[in-house]
Amino acid sequence: MRVLGIDPGTRYLGLGIVERDGRGAARWVAHALLEPHKQGELPERLAYLFEQIGQIIEKHRPDEVAVEGVFHARNARSAIVLAHARGVALLCAARAKLPVFEYAPATIKKAVGVSGAARKEGVERMVRTLLQLPALERSDCADALAIALCHLQRARPELLTRPARHVIVRRS
Amino acid sequence: MRVLGIDPGTRYLGLGIVERDGRGAARWVAHALLEPHKQGELPERLAYLFEQIGQIIEKHRPDEVAVEGVFHARNARSAIVLAHARGVALLCAARAKLPVFEYAPATIKKAVGVSGAARKEGVERMVRTLLQLPALERSDCADALAIALCHLQRARPELLTRPARHVIVRRS
Repeated sequence: MRVLGIDPGTRYLGLGIVERDGRGAARWVAHALLEPHKQGELPERLAYLFEQIGQIIEKHRPDEVAVEGVFHARNARSAIVLAHARGVALLCAARAKLPVFEYAPATIKKAVGVSGAARKEGVERMVRTLLQLPALERSDCADALAIALCHLQRARPELLTRPARHVIVRRS
Repeated sequence: MRVLGIDPGTRYLGLGIVERDGRGAARWVAHALLEPHKQGELPERLAYLFEQIGQIIEKHRPDEVAVEGVFHARNARSAIVLAHARGVALLCAARAKLPVFEYAPATIKKAVGVSGAARKEGVERMVRTLLQLPALERSDCADALAIALCHLQRARPELLTRPARHVIVRRS
């Protein structure tokens, strides 16, 4: 299974894709940092996010999408602005018919092995260790990868009980 | 000039289109009530809004879009949920290359001739009177029409001072 984690924002938006390899370990696939603030006003930023997220879904074909729950934002005003970008991210998932899962920040931190009170740097260090990555440009990418890892971990037991998907490839 | 007013929401979303007729009076063009809550979870609701708003823009071809400023919401949690739908509405405007304008609730109420403290019924009554409409199904439509009327009124002086737009049509 391949998971796309999204850390939405109208200034920076982080995307992280991970999958489970043959031995059951989490493997890094890709990550990307979108910088909507360079695209002008809010509507143009959202249009940029829509295009870019759509392209990344098309390129990497994740099976599921994971995001952070939005009600954990510290500041109401910034949560409201962020929710515009989150709306566009959820829209992209729905248009690609991908199921979306959401997690509380503490759950995400626990999933990558840091305490709920850990700072951004702690999350980034663990994500880099778990996925054997060099330094990441901004914490948004580490956060997106952490959300994807959290879902990969959570989704495992479910996957084992679910019937296997059979893909029939027609050859002409 | 034709204006699309949007009153966003993830349960109900109101759309109202008005234009200025030859004598300078505001004229009703159309209004619509979208009911995203019937479409399932939040991502599916947003996908539904995206499709529907896109179709309405394509059908009625407004020149500009007007929305209420989002920071006036009374309740942070509901403002955050609403902002997801607002993000999708702004996205639709940007994709259609339409400029977006936002107004404070008190400005909108004043524009349709009621006091800033007026209730929803007062706004609806004035909108129906100004546009000679029968009863509206829900207040979301009246609010969307009020936002559009507010922009139509505001945009007038600007329009008069702005240089005319010259459109060059090439004929082969």
